[in-house]
Amino acid sequence: MAMNVTQKLIKSHLLSGEMVPGEEIGLRIDQSLTQDATGTMVMLELEAMGIDRVKTELSAQYVDHNLLQTDYKNADDHLFLRSACQRFGIWYSRPGNGISHAVHMERFGIPGKTLIGSDSHTPAAGSMGMLAFGAGGIDVAIAAIGEPMFIKMPKVLGVKLTGKLPDWVSAKDVVLEMLRRYDVHGCRGMIVEYYGSGLEALRAMDRHVIANMGTELGATTTVFPSDAEIQHFLTTQGRGEDWVELVADQGAEYDVYDEINLSELVPLIACPSSPGNVVPVTEVAGRPVNQVVVGSSANPGLRDFWIVSAIAQDKVAHDRVSFDINPTSRQLIENLAAMDDTFLNLIHSGARFHQAGCLGCIGMGQAPASDQISLRTMPRNFPGRSGTADDQVYLCSPETAVAAALTGEITDPRALEKIYGMTYPQYVPPEREIINTDMLVAPPEDGSNIELEKGPNIKSFPEFAALPNDFSVPVLLKVGDNVSTDEIMPAGARVLPFRSNIPGISQFVYYMVDETFSERAQIAQEKFGGHVIVGGSNYAQGSSREHAAIAPRYLGQVAAIAKSYARIGWQNLVNFGIMPLEFVNPHDYDEIEERDEIEIQGLREALKDRRPLTVSNKTKDKVYPMTHSLSPRQIDIILAGGVINKYK
Amino acid sequence: MAMNVTQKLIKSHLLSGEMVPGEEIGLRIDQSLTQDATGTMVMLELEAMGIDRVKTELSAQYVDHNLLQTDYKNADDHLFLRSACQRFGIWYSRPGNGISHAVHMERFGIPGKTLIGSDSHTPAAGSMGMLAFGAGGIDVAIAAIGEPMFIKMPKVLGVKLTGKLPDWVSAKDVVLEMLRRYDVHGCRGMIVEYYGSGLEALRAMDRHVIANMGTELGATTTVFPSDAEIQHFLTTQGRGEDWVELVADQGAEYDVYDEINLSELVPLIACPSSPGNVVPVTEVAGRPVNQVVVGSSANPGLRDFWIVSAIAQDKVAHDRVSFDINPTSRQLIENLAAMDDTFLNLIHSGARFHQAGCLGCIGMGQAPASDQISLRTMPRNFPGRSGTADDQVYLCSPETAVAAALTGEITDPRALEKIYGMTYPQYVPPEREIINTDMLVAPPEDGSNIELEKGPNIKSFPEFAALPNDFSVPVLLKVGDNVSTDEIMPAGARVLPFRSNIPGISQFVYYMVDETFSERAQIAQEKFGGHVIVGGSNYAQGSSREHAAIAPRYLGQVAAIAKSYARIGWQNLVNFGIMPLEFVNPHDYDEIEERDEIEIQGLREALKDRRPLTVSNKTKDKVYPMTHSLSPRQIDIILAGGVINKYK
Repeated sequence: MAMNVTQKLIKSHLLSGEMVPGEEIGLRIDQSLTQDATGTMVMLELEAMGIDRVKTELSAQYVDHNLLQTDYKNADDHLFLRSACQRFGIWYSRPGNGISHAVHMERFGIPGKTLIGSDSHTPAAGSMGMLAFGAGGIDVAIAAIGEPMFIKMPKVLGVKLTGKLPDWVSAKDVVLEMLRRYDVHGCRGMIVEYYGSGLEALRAMDRHVIANMGTELGATTTVFPSDAEIQHFLTTQGRGEDWVELVADQGAEYDVYDEINLSELVPLIACPSSPGNVVPVTEVAGRPVNQVVVGSSANPGLRDFWIVSAIAQDKVAHDRVSFDINPTSRQLIENLAAMDDTFLNLIHSGARFHQAGCLGCIGMGQAPASDQISLRTMPRNFPGRSGTADDQVYLCSPETAVAAALTGEITDPRALEKIYGMTYPQYVPPEREIINTDMLVAPPEDGSNIELEKGPNIKSFPEFAALPNDFSVPVLLKVGDNVSTDEIMPAGARVLPFRSNIPGISQFVYYMVDETFSERAQIAQEKFGGHVIVGGSNYAQGSSREHAAIAPRYLGQVAAIAKSYARIGWQNLVNFGIMPLEFVNPHDYDEIEERDEIEIQGLREALKDRRPLTVSNKTKDKVYPMTHSLSPRQIDIILAGGVINKYK
Repeated sequence: MAMNVTQKLIKSHLLSGEMVPGEEIGLRIDQSLTQDATGTMVMLELEAMGIDRVKTELSAQYVDHNLLQTDYKNADDHLFLRSACQRFGIWYSRPGNGISHAVHMERFGIPGKTLIGSDSHTPAAGSMGMLAFGAGGIDVAIAAIGEPMFIKMPKVLGVKLTGKLPDWVSAKDVVLEMLRRYDVHGCRGMIVEYYGSGLEALRAMDRHVIANMGTELGATTTVFPSDAEIQHFLTTQGRGEDWVELVADQGAEYDVYDEINLSELVPLIACPSSPGNVVPVTEVAGRPVNQVVVGSSANPGLRDFWIVSAIAQDKVAHDRVSFDINPTSRQLIENLAAMDDTFLNLIHSGARFHQAGCLGCIGMGQAPASDQISLRTMPRNFPGRSGTADDQVYLCSPETAVAAALTGEITDPRALEKIYGMTYPQYVPPEREIINTDMLVAPPEDGSNIELEKGPNIKSFPEFAALPNDFSVPVLLKVGDNVSTDEIMPAGARVLPFRSNIPGISQFVYYMVDETFSERAQIAQEKFGGHVIVGGSNYAQGSSREHAAIAPRYLGQVAAIAKSYARIGWQNLVNFGIMPLEFVNPHDYDEIEERDEIEIQGLREALKDRRPLTVSNKTKDKVYPMTHSLSPRQIDIILAGGVINKYK
């Protein structure tokens, strides 16, 4: 049967299941990637599982998120990650070496391989013919110890690219066109695969832009073929021998089809505050701009910075505009500096040039002024993500960004031809790129004697007991429908610094809903040995943060009882040993109240023997029938007290 | 009479008083400088005084401190400062354009002129034959409106420099030698003037290093002559026409003498946690280092970065070391980038290269890891200033700093000859320097129609009434001896963001001593029209922050009653209209208690007529005789309700 690239990638890694959309499949994972904001917990999980060394072909840890050091915590995390990499056999990319996605592609990515990463933009590696997934930390930890990754087989959306991008239009406009068509949810349950003659003019890093922001479409991942361009890219990176060809077979088919004629694209821009609010730049031209930020994993290429420099040459950023450059990597900075006056022109035109990393993209610095417009080449503009609550962030190409930096207002970059009498600068890649591998620290052959270096804010993963068979505990909280992980475990500047410290972060569980929750949970643990919470439908929706399960579990949560669960939140509860019970009769939810005492007997046997479950409300003297959606594999996990106990 | 450089500078600006050490003199101020962390309050004070345009020959506002934008506040401050500069006729140096002291010297400094700056390292301009003082914000505001600056005539310490610095020893080692001799208080009440044949080999920016850190000696300021080297420096900066010669007369004398033979100096280092803890580097060599930071106003020169690059060339920073570069200015970055591979070598060796500004020097980023050693070329290592409470910060030359970055431990840079088989790189300045004035925004001829652009955290300076004649108010707090301005008005990450917001910052007055203070003060204001506090001796010592007077005044503080006052804290009370009363009989302090009601009648007449003052303790039915130390000029200020009312 003729196969597309996605099918080939899946087939070559299929360990279980059928390649039928909707069916659960298990995949072999070749490589893993972590960044510092999620990686510290992954390392603590590996420690808790008692792992000696990761079993992937290659795992790499990047330090790109928490580079601003306003107190000891981030610097302590860097030292901890360095020691953990040596301990567990993981490459360590030093702070300031660059953004995971671009550095991984340049240094480690191999066409035809699978990659899991604890960062939602991991699919960027799809640009070079990899099958790359973003996931929660524990999923990466599990893959790193050699276990399969399970997903439901997605549909494949084949997007045919034809034509060639006009002047002043670039790769960002392609993915913005996709967002214009599909919005931020339109590709859920799909893998987007690009093909067609239009690929020829898209360089590897252009494809990276498109694959990276496939995440914003809600896609499971994005896939490009590994063709001559990828061979050229790997050769430029001194890794020509890592190239393998991976293209769709003649006559390959897709589950769904779409087509973009690149020649017809115009400069596009996503308006506040969703990547899906896309309009032509002309529609919002003239609005005054206070900040322009160029960089991030959504425009990481040398071309992307070069074009900004070439356009800004001999001009000066408007005096109301903060013109910020977030370079991708150390290697990128070196290549910019070595490319005639590319770096010098940027600086001379007024750029505030930052260390290499994510920085402004994740609100780690460069927060814009109140209620002022900021244009960014970044992947997301969710409200407040910039660090400013009432932000007005627009997403656009480097061409559109620099046009605004110069004029002080949103400007279609094609207008620069008239304004400055200039033509579109034509990028010619350097014949050779500078390669810098010095800041990638290889792990030793045997790291088993390395001590983990833990600053005072880094606490080992707590030990959790196996699931109890019988318990009688209070309902500590009853919440309504659609409660999100943001309500269960808040983020923000006050809470985030405790991400490597479960006892510390646990004091903020449900803090925004009921600030006595953590204290009451501790009392219930002493008195009853734990607690349960009661939820409505779609419990634990939203962000994938695993702390929304780990921290409640730390506080003694034995089970949740809800009408239904959101997928990732539910999976996290299971992974960390909280039993997710579901009402058989949803109206029972109405009767149960906060402080009721709930008794369950024989839970372990009921799960093992797949017998019906009941819960007694001792306070109300009622019995409620319960169900659950656990697979046999997940029942093993729950019985063990969580995935870490299972693999320990 | 033969005069030294200091005497010439003072004489040419003397408006009142005698040039006799200890006598009060009034000086004409030619230029002023503000930075963003103190400048916002200066602008609010100018607004409150109803000023149309500053009267100095030149005033410049730099944005170099608060460059990390973790929420809207700093970016809002930048826009506010930009608008205020246009309004009041002040040059605006855009964010990321560089550190005030170096940029001012390059662009605006003129030998023979006086300069006041709301930054304690303003004396750096003494390197080019200016008389430059650091001061509180209101002092800068007063000078900016054309009023004289008053100080007590200092003694002049003449330091004769002979010989020539050996290889691997540079200007930082000269000022560290001064700190070794005088510690951090040894030059109080003095101006340090350097002279002698040793000056010949010290370039302008080397002298800047020494003048800058004269502040750490406790000196009033530091003065160098304006000689051929300064002429050369100004010519390099395209301002040869601004040069005037200013050297000591043959036979000039000093009040105190000292001498340093440069040929005998060795690499020195200031150990934690005082700039005065100076030892030879050899004494602490071998200690493991986790961070090295190069830059700041205490090593701002092109040479200082070039030497680091030249030493690091073809080497890699030790993998436990975060090697941070804080470049001085945009212009410096451009010159580094234009100087062969100077910039490229720094990046390739592992430097985390930050935007231009103060950053790590004032704990705005690059906080070191817990209990780890950080080597810095910065001026100060007070405990916790780095942002990490248990920091271990050492101060040293660029040569000593880069040696540690490469070896991972404190290393005498002379040892690099053996370790790497290298010789000391010899600096050859570029024939022409790149000059960038694009980020300096000149004020318009007439800014009277410009609106101040105030974000939600920027509040106008509050209106204060004139001193009341009669009042009867409670003692809201009684404190002991040596209470510091840190106790009155705390700093720290929670409070500092409110520096442009007096109502906001006022809720933290005395917060660490009594967290009900602010609330009780507001109640007392409603009920009694104000309050007083009672202090012991040396009240309001420490940091010069003027918020320690403005905020209590905002809360209704009418008077302080203390045994004695620290100089700057006392001056701030007067400047903002709080009457600083002193016990005639110090034992009366023992009797007075918190909540006692205090009555004063006829205060205005008593001050005007210089009659004796008394305070009645209505609760205790006692009368206490009082005194004060106000000059007639200061009595006018107090009667008006503060200096802003006086000049309004």
